[in-house]
Amino acid sequence: MLPHLALKPKPVEVPQKENTIRLASCNGGQSLVPGEPDGPCVKTDIPGPKSKALMGELSKSLFLGSIQFLGDYDKSIGNYLVDADDNVLLDTYTQISTVPIGYNHPELLKVFQNEHNLKTMVNRPALGVFPGVDWPKKMEHILKEVSPGLPHITTMMCGSCSNENAFKNIFMAYRAKTRGGGDFTEEEKQSCVINQPPGSPKLSILSFIGGFHGRTLGALSSTHSKAIHKIDVPAFDWPIAHFPKYKYPLADNCRENVEEDHKCLAEVEDLMEKYKKKDIPVAGVIVEPIQSEGGDNHASPEFFQCLQKICKKNGAYLLIDEVQTGCGPTGKFWCHEYFNLECPPDIVTFSKKMQMAGYFQTEEMSPKKPYRIFNTWMGDPGKAILLEAVLKVIKSQNLLEQVEKSGRRLLCGLHDLQSEFPCHLNSARGRGTFAAITAESPALRDDILKRMKKKGVQGGGCGLQSIRLRPALVFQEHHVDIFLDIFREIMKEIK
Amino acid sequence: MLPHLALKPKPVEVPQKENTIRLASCNGGQSLVPGEPDGPCVKTDIPGPKSKALMGELSKSLFLGSIQFLGDYDKSIGNYLVDADDNVLLDTYTQISTVPIGYNHPELLKVFQNEHNLKTMVNRPALGVFPGVDWPKKMEHILKEVSPGLPHITTMMCGSCSNENAFKNIFMAYRAKTRGGGDFTEEEKQSCVINQPPGSPKLSILSFIGGFHGRTLGALSSTHSKAIHKIDVPAFDWPIAHFPKYKYPLADNCRENVEEDHKCLAEVEDLMEKYKKKDIPVAGVIVEPIQSEGGDNHASPEFFQCLQKICKKNGAYLLIDEVQTGCGPTGKFWCHEYFNLECPPDIVTFSKKMQMAGYFQTEEMSPKKPYRIFNTWMGDPGKAILLEAVLKVIKSQNLLEQVEKSGRRLLCGLHDLQSEFPCHLNSARGRGTFAAITAESPALRDDILKRMKKKGVQGGGCGLQSIRLRPALVFQEHHVDIFLDIFREIMKEIK
Repeated sequence: MLPHLALKPKPVEVPQKENTIRLASCNGGQSLVPGEPDGPCVKTDIPGPKSKALMGELSKSLFLGSIQFLGDYDKSIGNYLVDADDNVLLDTYTQISTVPIGYNHPELLKVFQNEHNLKTMVNRPALGVFPGVDWPKKMEHILKEVSPGLPHITTMMCGSCSNENAFKNIFMAYRAKTRGGGDFTEEEKQSCVINQPPGSPKLSILSFIGGFHGRTLGALSSTHSKAIHKIDVPAFDWPIAHFPKYKYPLADNCRENVEEDHKCLAEVEDLMEKYKKKDIPVAGVIVEPIQSEGGDNHASPEFFQCLQKICKKNGAYLLIDEVQTGCGPTGKFWCHEYFNLECPPDIVTFSKKMQMAGYFQTEEMSPKKPYRIFNTWMGDPGKAILLEAVLKVIKSQNLLEQVEKSGRRLLCGLHDLQSEFPCHLNSARGRGTFAAITAESPALRDDILKRMKKKGVQGGGCGLQSIRLRPALVFQEHHVDIFLDIFREIMKEIK
Repeated sequence: MLPHLALKPKPVEVPQKENTIRLASCNGGQSLVPGEPDGPCVKTDIPGPKSKALMGELSKSLFLGSIQFLGDYDKSIGNYLVDADDNVLLDTYTQISTVPIGYNHPELLKVFQNEHNLKTMVNRPALGVFPGVDWPKKMEHILKEVSPGLPHITTMMCGSCSNENAFKNIFMAYRAKTRGGGDFTEEEKQSCVINQPPGSPKLSILSFIGGFHGRTLGALSSTHSKAIHKIDVPAFDWPIAHFPKYKYPLADNCRENVEEDHKCLAEVEDLMEKYKKKDIPVAGVIVEPIQSEGGDNHASPEFFQCLQKICKKNGAYLLIDEVQTGCGPTGKFWCHEYFNLECPPDIVTFSKKMQMAGYFQTEEMSPKKPYRIFNTWMGDPGKAILLEAVLKVIKSQNLLEQVEKSGRRLLCGLHDLQSEFPCHLNSARGRGTFAAITAESPALRDDILKRMKKKGVQGGGCGLQSIRLRPALVFQEHHVDIFLDIFREIMKEIK
């Protein structure tokens, strides 16, 4: 039976209307990153002639399919990405959501002018065996400072590796429970080396349609956003449930959306039962707090609360994948803080804006024998130094507050736009500046993104037909206004 | 039928005896990294009191099982690793074989004093979408310069990700061949999203017992060196063949070793047949040129030549994993250069000493649609800058020649040692300074490594009972002599 689900989940906040006058021209001295231009400036097609020439060079070494243009990262500053042809773009996509405090932030440029930090980066140790003498302090004063209530930390290099190793942690903890504290059997030791049970057991991770958790083979088996990521690649037979698909505006569709939660949660329970019977029990569940690549799909706090309860009831561990949502873009450091979970999730993975990657975990999750969760580098201390500087800036400039402010203005503007262009735009949604709006068709979405670039806004898509906003944490109200003004101009052209 | 296999493969070279007088004290000014001490110096137990205190701190954040001591990377220099207690260790293990030109090499410390390089590192772009304007030049002048004859490059972050994505490339190329140039079917597009065939096909990668290719779920399914890496983790049902186990000395066991090659190659063919019948055809074969983690297991050039022929005959792609062997430690830039293969392998993966990771591939391997092999960062341009400096030093200081010289002296010394202590040591083997020797038992191996550390040598083990040598490329003859002298002292104590 489903845990209790309130009939009226608190909807994702709809902000109050605010003034949306364009402030670009009165930006003098107010930017959080000194030296930002007043607004975007486009001089050529994008990619322009210089980008095209460089792409010609690059095509000798690699397949170019996904490359849009070449960036000039010496000239880029704050929220503005400058390309090879000196076009200045307001960046709302930030290198797939990885730039936390803008380009060339002075505090980041400073860190490797310190000799100790420089040496830390150049002499990259195998952190699992011979970490540097300052590693304990770094763990304590950087990662522990932002812990989502979980005592243990595992450092890694990227989101995929973090999820893959979190899966391994889940499998190990699950089997330890089954084993009841006993040691490995000889049969387990011998069979695992040749990929056979009982040493390599049939266990699964439940994931959701629309979820994106990375592209290595394990992570990809839990990723279900687009076929092009997965086609031709063998996958594990793991259960996949539907993630809620809400009707917007949320306030007008409470009952339907609660029913949608119910349906999806019931499916999770059914799948757990089904895979238990198939003898591939669900050891863990992986979920994004907001499905990002899959289309900025939100679910209610109650959905996540119930999901956690179902996991506990069924002995499965809950992994919240905060790779894209972590480090502040939603206005809280971790997006799942919005969900008022009864207790922290079992594992929280991070990467992207955090510069370094890895996960926080419960003590139960930590394997009790060495070398089980291990690899050569176990992350990169050079990235910890960057993260340290990022966290200091977030604190000193109150960037989470800034994100909330900018986010309110942004969501308000998106709501205005969908009211003005109801045939073309719908489902404005977001937390902080982590926001999206859906176009009436994939073709219209692509057209809007193309037109945005022409007018100096670098934007990104997600799902089939949504536009995703992933600005840096230094995206201020005047940047919001520039973005909205350009968006409005485009919609008028289209209309 | 097996391809022709010569009866007398050229054995791994056994070097001529050379003078092994300890030169540590006359090292003045001759070191390739200025500022190196004359020899190791141990003042405390290892871990010493400061390391132990720091490990206490660290244990609040993570499970310490594998941590040996904390390093002081400000003080470490060249071949000498200094720990938290100021013990100075001659490092023959180099952070699991990842340090190419020693600690704090002046050429590495210089690179981020350049403002452009500093900005490149701080503004880390998504290389698959918006690479920096100098990325084409970097590809051409860094990676292409050391290409193993393969025209295309994919950059990644670590060895596991490189192998995982190389697998994906293999699967995609294999299916493209089957598909005969046609587009994906609707059924493939829909089934892959839920992990089912035909979109997620049953395909396999053949690997070898003793091989190590990483610890993410796909890479781990091809890794078979130690049970502790694999136990409790679900794996793909992929074929696993035996890797040759040679009898040493090679020159006295030619016939047996050729038979061993024959047996293993026949098993590869049998497994390809078996998995074809099981409807999980072998799309690719992954192999290390020297099985490293698995015990420094060598195979003859003829073994690799025949393996390549078998792959071609069966339509499987050959992936040579040079993560540990690449970047010069064997005396050639790529270890498989020793094998005189008929043509380059289809894929060569790299990481570790290269600082950045990824793979070289044939043009056939490159997917023809965008976003198939893709992730957020696609590597790290900061590491390309380090690699650039490393390659310059390798060239300007003729380090491959140095490795050959030091390697000859090292292997010669190991042969002497096994002649002097035939009950305790055997099977000295290696290419360049990538060398190993086997102890008569796992306990003796562990005892030798422990004693080495007490006398100031940081060493590593591999397989069940071997000692592996993985010095940096700046490991000179006088370092070899220090190592051998200490090794001899230990063996005398044990005797």
